[in-house]
Amino acid sequence: MDLGMTERVRPLVEAVRSMVEDEIAPLSVEYHEEIGRHPSGNRFALTDRQLEILRDLKGRARERGLWNFWLTDSARGYGLTTVEYAYLAEEMGKVPLAAEVFNCNAPDTGNMEVLERYGVDWMKARWLEPLLEGEIRSAYVMTEPETASSDAAQLAFAARREGDEYVLNGEKIWISGAGDPRCSVYILLACTDPDADKHRRHTMFVLDADTPGIEVLRPMQVFGEDDAPHGHMHLRFTDVRIPAKNVILGEGRGFEVAQGRLGPGRIHHCMRAIGQAEKALQMMCERGIAREAFGKRLAELGANYDIIANARMEIEQARLLCLKAAWVMDTEGTRAAAPWISQIKVVAPLMAGRVIDEAIQMHGGSGISQDFDLAHMWTHVRTLRFADGPDAVHRRQVARAELGKYARTGGRDG
Amino acid sequence: MDLGMTERVRPLVEAVRSMVEDEIAPLSVEYHEEIGRHPSGNRFALTDRQLEILRDLKGRARERGLWNFWLTDSARGYGLTTVEYAYLAEEMGKVPLAAEVFNCNAPDTGNMEVLERYGVDWMKARWLEPLLEGEIRSAYVMTEPETASSDAAQLAFAARREGDEYVLNGEKIWISGAGDPRCSVYILLACTDPDADKHRRHTMFVLDADTPGIEVLRPMQVFGEDDAPHGHMHLRFTDVRIPAKNVILGEGRGFEVAQGRLGPGRIHHCMRAIGQAEKALQMMCERGIAREAFGKRLAELGANYDIIANARMEIEQARLLCLKAAWVMDTEGTRAAAPWISQIKVVAPLMAGRVIDEAIQMHGGSGISQDFDLAHMWTHVRTLRFADGPDAVHRRQVARAELGKYARTGGRDG
Amino acid sequence: MDLGMTERVRPLVEAVRSMVEDEIAPLSVEYHEEIGRHPSGNRFALTDRQLEILRDLKGRARERGLWNFWLTDSARGYGLTTVEYAYLAEEMGKVPLAAEVFNCNAPDTGNMEVLERYGVDWMKARWLEPLLEGEIRSAYVMTEPETASSDAAQLAFAARREGDEYVLNGEKIWISGAGDPRCSVYILLACTDPDADKHRRHTMFVLDADTPGIEVLRPMQVFGEDDAPHGHMHLRFTDVRIPAKNVILGEGRGFEVAQGRLGPGRIHHCMRAIGQAEKALQMMCERGIAREAFGKRLAELGANYDIIANARMEIEQARLLCLKAAWVMDTEGTRAAAPWISQIKVVAPLMAGRVIDEAIQMHGGSGISQDFDLAHMWTHVRTLRFADGPDAVHRRQVARAELGKYARTGGRDG
Amino acid sequence: MDLGMTERVRPLVEAVRSMVEDEIAPLSVEYHEEIGRHPSGNRFALTDRQLEILRDLKGRARERGLWNFWLTDSARGYGLTTVEYAYLAEEMGKVPLAAEVFNCNAPDTGNMEVLERYGVDWMKARWLEPLLEGEIRSAYVMTEPETASSDAAQLAFAARREGDEYVLNGEKIWISGAGDPRCSVYILLACTDPDADKHRRHTMFVLDADTPGIEVLRPMQVFGEDDAPHGHMHLRFTDVRIPAKNVILGEGRGFEVAQGRLGPGRIHHCMRAIGQAEKALQMMCERGIAREAFGKRLAELGANYDIIANARMEIEQARLLCLKAAWVMDTEGTRAAAPWISQIKVVAPLMAGRVIDEAIQMHGGSGISQDFDLAHMWTHVRTLRFADGPDAVHRRQVARAELGKYARTGGRDG
Repeated sequence: MDLGMTERVRPLVEAVRSMVEDEIAPLSVEYHEEIGRHPSGNRFALTDRQLEILRDLKGRARERGLWNFWLTDSARGYGLTTVEYAYLAEEMGKVPLAAEVFNCNAPDTGNMEVLERYGVDWMKARWLEPLLEGEIRSAYVMTEPETASSDAAQLAFAARREGDEYVLNGEKIWISGAGDPRCSVYILLACTDPDADKHRRHTMFVLDADTPGIEVLRPMQVFGEDDAPHGHMHLRFTDVRIPAKNVILGEGRGFEVAQGRLGPGRIHHCMRAIGQAEKALQMMCERGIAREAFGKRLAELGANYDIIANARMEIEQARLLCLKAAWVMDTEGTRAAAPWISQIKVVAPLMAGRVIDEAIQMHGGSGISQDFDLAHMWTHVRTLRFADGPDAVHRRQVARAELGKYARTGGRDG
Repeated sequence: MDLGMTERVRPLVEAVRSMVEDEIAPLSVEYHEEIGRHPSGNRFALTDRQLEILRDLKGRARERGLWNFWLTDSARGYGLTTVEYAYLAEEMGKVPLAAEVFNCNAPDTGNMEVLERYGVDWMKARWLEPLLEGEIRSAYVMTEPETASSDAAQLAFAARREGDEYVLNGEKIWISGAGDPRCSVYILLACTDPDADKHRRHTMFVLDADTPGIEVLRPMQVFGEDDAPHGHMHLRFTDVRIPAKNVILGEGRGFEVAQGRLGPGRIHHCMRAIGQAEKALQMMCERGIAREAFGKRLAELGANYDIIANARMEIEQARLLCLKAAWVMDTEGTRAAAPWISQIKVVAPLMAGRVIDEAIQMHGGSGISQDFDLAHMWTHVRTLRFADGPDAVHRRQVARAELGKYARTGGRDG
Repeated sequence: MDLGMTERVRPLVEAVRSMVEDEIAPLSVEYHEEIGRHPSGNRFALTDRQLEILRDLKGRARERGLWNFWLTDSARGYGLTTVEYAYLAEEMGKVPLAAEVFNCNAPDTGNMEVLERYGVDWMKARWLEPLLEGEIRSAYVMTEPETASSDAAQLAFAARREGDEYVLNGEKIWISGAGDPRCSVYILLACTDPDADKHRRHTMFVLDADTPGIEVLRPMQVFGEDDAPHGHMHLRFTDVRIPAKNVILGEGRGFEVAQGRLGPGRIHHCMRAIGQAEKALQMMCERGIAREAFGKRLAELGANYDIIANARMEIEQARLLCLKAAWVMDTEGTRAAAPWISQIKVVAPLMAGRVIDEAIQMHGGSGISQDFDLAHMWTHVRTLRFADGPDAVHRRQVARAELGKYARTGGRDG
Repeated sequence: MDLGMTERVRPLVEAVRSMVEDEIAPLSVEYHEEIGRHPSGNRFALTDRQLEILRDLKGRARERGLWNFWLTDSARGYGLTTVEYAYLAEEMGKVPLAAEVFNCNAPDTGNMEVLERYGVDWMKARWLEPLLEGEIRSAYVMTEPETASSDAAQLAFAARREGDEYVLNGEKIWISGAGDPRCSVYILLACTDPDADKHRRHTMFVLDADTPGIEVLRPMQVFGEDDAPHGHMHLRFTDVRIPAKNVILGEGRGFEVAQGRLGPGRIHHCMRAIGQAEKALQMMCERGIAREAFGKRLAELGANYDIIANARMEIEQARLLCLKAAWVMDTEGTRAAAPWISQIKVVAPLMAGRVIDEAIQMHGGSGISQDFDLAHMWTHVRTLRFADGPDAVHRRQVARAELGKYARTGGRDG
């Protein structure tokens, strides 16, 4: 169980780290300052400067071969293991724009994974290729308003077969990335047979984002922010017609696709969250040394030594657990890794939230202001506690796996 | 030690509660939707509709005699005790606009307290009267950039005596309420003698907000929000000249005034935070009953019964502690109440944060969106953990008081 | 809602506090050192010296009128309120022997309460009188081996009616106080009709402890201690015959009696636990001042200021909640107080456990040794987390009460 | 960084696990029941049956080659790595007697390590050989009464040079294992030059346990238990004379020896604590499945799924951290591993305490009784929070290492 940084990935980590710190970080600030400055007044339109920043940074990354690392165990990418990718993803987590620069950003990686694994040739040519090139972006269209997403039976957005087409009707919400004008393709889950067995009711589709009949009702806010231009959109589909061939894997197999998609995506979020915690600890230490009060360094006041030590101990433990989950994915596959992924999915965001919270406290008012990244990091990791399944659902999975060791019926659904 | 709701205050609580729920809550939503709609594009300008809402609601409150409750133990207000006020403040905490409607909003109450207690007649006529009438608003100008506010020795913003005037120079930050165009008066702490004893260096001034030489550098953001039109402004003072008679209480007595101001303000924040926690618990229960997953009510899934019970137990304890601190203020004065206020200042925001966090989790993605108040409540109570002194400083006060019981030197500064 | 110490009870609190500290504490140590020194080698036999210590201390207490405080709202005792009693019970919690010296010890107070409230005259004459005089002791015989006591349906110990008698058969466990040779009377719950409705199956009996057929199987250990001579006995009843008139209140009304008994008993445990936490905090402070390391007082090292402050804040909150529960009992009765008692039943032992744990940590190895009371306090308060209902059951009660506010069916049993 | 179970160690782990479960566990119960049954009445004397049990089990272990695993990276033992040993130690942690059966018990392993690493030939022949054979036992004599052991400057037990001898005077406390009649040798730290530099004042000695002048004052109790026959003794040394050649490594180098000894010992405790947590989780699950209340399995009630999941997540994280600390020891040495060992020294006992606490709660009263191991496990892991340095001292080390990354002076002693 080698969880260390391999010799192969070490230079990549170094290259990514220095590019993130030295090149992406300052431009990421500028990129975000541009939001809302588009002449149209539309916060979800990209300004020329934003496009230029993206083109420039992505160009540099490709040139240096720092691209598509997430494509593990594949001849198309580096063929990295998930463990190796973890070390890279952690670095990318430290600056908001970084993952996209290396074409390793959510939800595109998950969507590319779906197309790579379950897509047929024409789908790959039409959507996977430009995604792998970083030319377009994508969205994953699953969550519905007023439903508990973790309970599949409640997802009622309808796709009705009519001849060679399906007709889609209903609302979808929290469609992350759908705000971006470059978002061209949707991977969408719809109910094709409400009377079928719970896990056979749904079908996964792929469709162009500009298919007629799709309307943005509003951008959802996350703690008051609209995350423009990425966005988390509330969409309405009215008689949206798509060819029947746009079904992925087969009618009624939507959950099979969804499960295959979720494992890697969840763990990538965790890797980046660990990177954010690491950055927050660094900021905490730097502040603790630089700032003085009552004639002492901040670090030496009150419980600050304990706070720093606890942060270090929490980060190390979460990182190792994340690496172990990655290692189980690499060696035994996503299915076997499921309880491990559930574990880290609960652990990492909670841990990162606590560490960032303490970093904020050490920064006083500045910590929640625009002068530091901490405020955004704090609200962001908070969202991870329900994105891709709330903590309660993952804890339940972990407990069922545990009880299942002792009694065949121990883990029964109840 | 009567901590109960008195017969005298009960009808007031009822009147406030129903006005908050039925009348203020819907208009509060509309008020906040108006932000940014001023023709000038200035988020800190009030639209006609905003002014109308405020005028309307405040008019109704005054008409019903629901006004200036905070003025405890005074012939001018109701002469309520702080304990009685706590029950009212809790209700006002439940909706953002409510406190202002009853003229009980921060920082105005604290500033009025200063003018009432330490101001001379002309100051009262000029600023206290219109504040008590709710005609103007005020700001408290203390915090400075790049300093630990809790360490008085670091506050270096300078007021230099020149004949009959003082000349102010320096920067102040996090000046809450200074964004509001109705903000007309500042209570400001400045260093008048950097060589004096640590607690005699500073002087408190009162001045018109439009005194020449004051410039808004930028609005500070709180978790990405500018809290317009209230705002938390970063100000620069350049050769701002004010008459020497604008000194409050006397040169070098700034900290005496600041201490007198802080006690009540801190406890009012806590009372409102408890109201927010109570509201979050209500939302949690309502959601737990209304929403179903896996064929069961949400409340019956996972650890939700425990989560609800813990929230109830935490709220009750914090409320009782807050009431006790209020009771000590009422019976023994602000100085004696200091360690009790420090206790509740630590306890209430942390407790409210935890309860709101669980309410968010029970709401899933909606919990952090614009569809519920929870997101704003959560970030707001987080700010209370450093507003008016960070937790660490208050814990230190509590510990020193405790150790001081056992050894005269136990509580020495160190 | 007056939660303060009344003028009436203040001198009693002072008298109890000084007697506990000055007179009982040293003899309590001697009393416990005597355990195991009886010539018979029987740890559950009282030595002459133990009997002398008890006689002496109880004599002094009675002489000073410090006796039977627990008998609230009654002409026979002081007629104290439960709130007033709380202040006394807290002091008695600080030294193991203290409650008994004032005839306020568990399980006798609960048993006396049963006899006082539900007993008929001959029962009172035979058992209540000598209990009130402190001449005999008693036990409450409810828990059964291998059953979840909180689920009444599982209690199967049988009482079969035969003419004018009942014949008892079965095992009971954790019978606290049954080890003491002075224990003369049992209040016992038995199943008289297993086919009846769940809450009508059981009947409460009173019987002499030396009724033939009762056998002590073994003393149960609590973290390795047998708590001799008090003891927590595992008993077997074999054809134990008792007169039918020994039924309390009526056949099938056992749970009604049990409920009436539990409320006060639970809250008394909490009051004493708060006293123990208060004592632990005092020890923590004294140690923090007296002991030095690395040239500083222990109190000033690491996070100790925060630890002390947190202890103070937790204690104050729990005490106020306990007083509020007592006040609800006083003003609205035990039934209305039930959710409040459940709250404090969860809060107080957990809080005391945390405070004592920190006090232990501040004492290093000594903290767990025989040189301080802390080790025993820590294990003792741990037992309170399932005595009289485990935390989970009480949390459930609190949650059901909470949900019940919002929907008639919200609190349904599920 | 291979943290997995190697192929080499896997069969050893299996052999140890099955021997612990099937053979040692039942005899361990019998062994402990024998305590206090020696005809002399002395709880610290071993009965014939105890000696027989030990002889028998150790004989079987040696026969199977399950012996001295702790001797990592050495030609004399298996030459296991510390990572490999961790998997074995975890199994040994599950039953009290197990470590001794495999000659891997504290404090002997630490003492053997000292003799192996720093001892000269005659010392090895006289004491190390019989220790490696499991024929004698040893004690580590460092802690002194009324001192903060972590502050070396306070250790004042004196060794005065007189010609070819040293004369020892003073008291030592918490000398674990010194109760056992087979304990024949002491490794002892004494102050040889109180005026020297803080870390050069002390010298490490090795001496026979029966050297004249050593007196047992009393056995220290741990939560009321004397841990006989092992024991934690309070010793007095009066003019105890030992040859000068009994100095280990050299006068004034006592701390150098102590540091070398502590690293492995600390991590071994952690490994065993993780084994105990794992066992507690297993008990929790088995109980949760076997026991019913209110018509449901215990596991399905309240927050029990969450409790089980949290236990699993905590254990996995702590185990990985422990393995990483072991790996750093293996690859970079004890000095480099110090902050990692400090981390796990804080994490593992706290984690194990929480998991065992929940297991107790799931077992109700039985959980704290003699019917399950949980009570002893709980108090035992509690002692690990100050054994070999209290949490606060280890947190301080971790924080200093962390701050040291950012500023040379960041980690200064303060």
